[in-house]
Amino acid sequence: MSDTPDSAVRTYTEQHRAAFLDDLAEWLRIPSVSAQPEHDGDVRRSAGWLSAKLAETGFPVTEIWETPGAPAVFAEWPSEDPGAPVVLVYGHHDVQPAAREDGWSTDPFEPVIRDGRMYGRGAADDKGQVFFHTLGVRAHLAATGRTTPAVHLKLLIEGEEESGSPHFRALAEERAARLAADVVIVSDTGMWDENTPTVCTGMRGLAECEIELNGPDQDIHSGSFGGAVPNPATVLARLVAALHDPEGRVAVPGFYDGVTELTEAERALFAELPFDEDTWLRTAGSYATAGEAGYSTLERVWARPTAEVNGIGGGYQGAGSKTVIPSSALVKLSFRLVAGQDPERIQEAVRSWAEARIPAGIRHRITFSPATRPCLTPLDHPALQAVARAMGRAFGTKILFTREGGSGPAADLQDVLGAPVLFLGISVPSDGWHGPDEKVELGLLLKGVETTAHLWGELADALR
Amino acid sequence: MSDTPDSAVRTYTEQHRAAFLDDLAEWLRIPSVSAQPEHDGDVRRSAGWLSAKLAETGFPVTEIWETPGAPAVFAEWPSEDPGAPVVLVYGHHDVQPAAREDGWSTDPFEPVIRDGRMYGRGAADDKGQVFFHTLGVRAHLAATGRTTPAVHLKLLIEGEEESGSPHFRALAEERAARLAADVVIVSDTGMWDENTPTVCTGMRGLAECEIELNGPDQDIHSGSFGGAVPNPATVLARLVAALHDPEGRVAVPGFYDGVTELTEAERALFAELPFDEDTWLRTAGSYATAGEAGYSTLERVWARPTAEVNGIGGGYQGAGSKTVIPSSALVKLSFRLVAGQDPERIQEAVRSWAEARIPAGIRHRITFSPATRPCLTPLDHPALQAVARAMGRAFGTKILFTREGGSGPAADLQDVLGAPVLFLGISVPSDGWHGPDEKVELGLLLKGVETTAHLWGELADALR
Repeated sequence: MSDTPDSAVRTYTEQHRAAFLDDLAEWLRIPSVSAQPEHDGDVRRSAGWLSAKLAETGFPVTEIWETPGAPAVFAEWPSEDPGAPVVLVYGHHDVQPAAREDGWSTDPFEPVIRDGRMYGRGAADDKGQVFFHTLGVRAHLAATGRTTPAVHLKLLIEGEEESGSPHFRALAEERAARLAADVVIVSDTGMWDENTPTVCTGMRGLAECEIELNGPDQDIHSGSFGGAVPNPATVLARLVAALHDPEGRVAVPGFYDGVTELTEAERALFAELPFDEDTWLRTAGSYATAGEAGYSTLERVWARPTAEVNGIGGGYQGAGSKTVIPSSALVKLSFRLVAGQDPERIQEAVRSWAEARIPAGIRHRITFSPATRPCLTPLDHPALQAVARAMGRAFGTKILFTREGGSGPAADLQDVLGAPVLFLGISVPSDGWHGPDEKVELGLLLKGVETTAHLWGELADALR
Repeated sequence: MSDTPDSAVRTYTEQHRAAFLDDLAEWLRIPSVSAQPEHDGDVRRSAGWLSAKLAETGFPVTEIWETPGAPAVFAEWPSEDPGAPVVLVYGHHDVQPAAREDGWSTDPFEPVIRDGRMYGRGAADDKGQVFFHTLGVRAHLAATGRTTPAVHLKLLIEGEEESGSPHFRALAEERAARLAADVVIVSDTGMWDENTPTVCTGMRGLAECEIELNGPDQDIHSGSFGGAVPNPATVLARLVAALHDPEGRVAVPGFYDGVTELTEAERALFAELPFDEDTWLRTAGSYATAGEAGYSTLERVWARPTAEVNGIGGGYQGAGSKTVIPSSALVKLSFRLVAGQDPERIQEAVRSWAEARIPAGIRHRITFSPATRPCLTPLDHPALQAVARAMGRAFGTKILFTREGGSGPAADLQDVLGAPVLFLGISVPSDGWHGPDEKVELGLLLKGVETTAHLWGELADALR
């Protein structure tokens, strides 16, 4: 056990709360919108502001890391303890676009506190969740009387996450030696809800595929030729229809090879979450659930691989009708992958499966985008248990576990650094990521401070 | 048998050839493009020109029939013979748009004769094929010494065919009593090729259907929700894939109910046609044939009903990728129908079939456009045999039979008038309908004159 008294952490956090929130508000005033070129200077200013703030926090090393796009911020605070584990925290300092006319109640870049919440673009995604690490490490030192953290702490806060992290993987590879860590903590996710603190244990991977089928050289008359030539739209539909078997499983041979199955323990913990299917359906805007037989909705989106059509098109799509056999048809597929699946092998399996199903007279083009690997930390991993304990001390309640159905650049860190990735976030679904009136719950933000204040000691103990 | 001596017809035709071609050229100079409002006056001028020419030909009744769009021309020449059968000839006097810069070698509305062909918009489609009836009926009278035709002859030459005949059915219904006929002769098609005179015995019908499926209220994230909600694009693909069975037959229950099967005699006659599959594929621009097992390519396009996708679309179709589950997906289907199929019953069958396959959570909208009925005259019909005999006398060779895979307003005449529809055309595939350098072969045009010169006597004998 860490020697950090929980009450000392809480007291320190309370004492510095006002200044901490003032600082966060100052940062939120910088409109670091990476997707809008007119804000390039603001993203750069945000990096400089954060770097200076981390230096002020006590990090002996703070650096701006340039990329071909927006700069990242790197900071490092070695531990005085010999053999202390190395922890890399990941987050981002850029934000989504926002304008008052999008439906904001107040200026998105002039943060305000109302009803215990701070409203402003980036309050939750991700400046607030990066920022709790600053007060957190100071609370950790203050409560333990240490002069350096119990772990060798590194922060990498990128500036292009909201633009798809186009240079992130290259940056991680180039700086792999500086980034080397025993554990990666990603603070860019959230918890189940206000009353249910949770730790996310993994994200799905992603392999995207575009299949274009070409039939006749141009659209041809469906009267003159209909019934006697292969129709690429029909062939494409048959391909898509064959993607799943009647049980809702992906029918591409080899697709499930190596899949890490859910443990009974994890299924039991998922089942403890206060999941309400009607609420979930309303959030999705969907009118029914569907999917792989034998799995719950949460299991389907978190722990099972999928094949989905993202887009399909071919022939005449305008008003009225045009009696043609289309010259071509195209489908965009995405495969969400889980631990144990290798994106490159999945791509090859999809290619072979598709090619075997394309009849004579139909030419094809199958292309894959760069894939994102899945990441998953087993429930019994000591680092994960340490995160849960730290969070439990801050929240004073049982910590449950979730996963994330989406995919993200965090997997690149797991891949490049070979370290497990843990997700520590205090955001909640109502925070309005990417929408108007984004906010962070101040109570939860301070629980984030307390969690990280406990975390470094817990991790040092767990990984010793 | 008719009492028209073949040589007398040939002589009369040769004698009047020059004036006939001059007249046709004059008509072709009127740019009666029904699809372009700036040519409304020209379409009207074309109707007036034709009406006057028919009066000059000897038709005692010529009328301009107004519609909410472009006018049609009606002409009538009763027979002196009591009980003579009534024949209605259908054609159109409007033409497709044409401009020199579309690739014409000469002005499309300044006809020229080169190498035994007359080039100009409408030369084959359809002014040339309407016009051979004028000299044809005069040759019929001259060669037989009659003062009225051997049949009660009616002509209906519409002015909106190239615009989809929007008012044709209503006109036919309104004027049904005036149009009443024992046989309809449509002169708006063609023959197999220059060396293979053929008679077309039917056209396929057409039922068009649009199916829109709606899933989530908006496009949703395929990471957060993928694998757990029904994807309307996937459901749509399954529907399309289920349209056909493995034998290439349409799998909608009841689809083949009542279908008039090809007779062995007709299959044998089709097989006599000089069909070359490689040439056909080049014309189609397709790289293979496909379709219903057990039928040849010609049988598939002429005599078998089909289901084809004309267009399909849903979700993200732009460059790159967007990992969404689409909110909706849409398919446009067309069903070509053959004799014995009822479009309304087919529509109901398609609706029931589709609705039974749409799973929970997917809302749908299924709409049908007004359908076109199929038409078919059996090979042993006396009128059809009369057409073949008349053509055989003009061409001096065996007449074979074709059908037309497309669909057209002729079926409305069959439907409204309850009369069999026969297709008498002398155009050939190289005539370039709707394209640049449209032309008519003068030799074939004059064979058209001779055919109709023989036809009225043959028909009067056959239907007596």
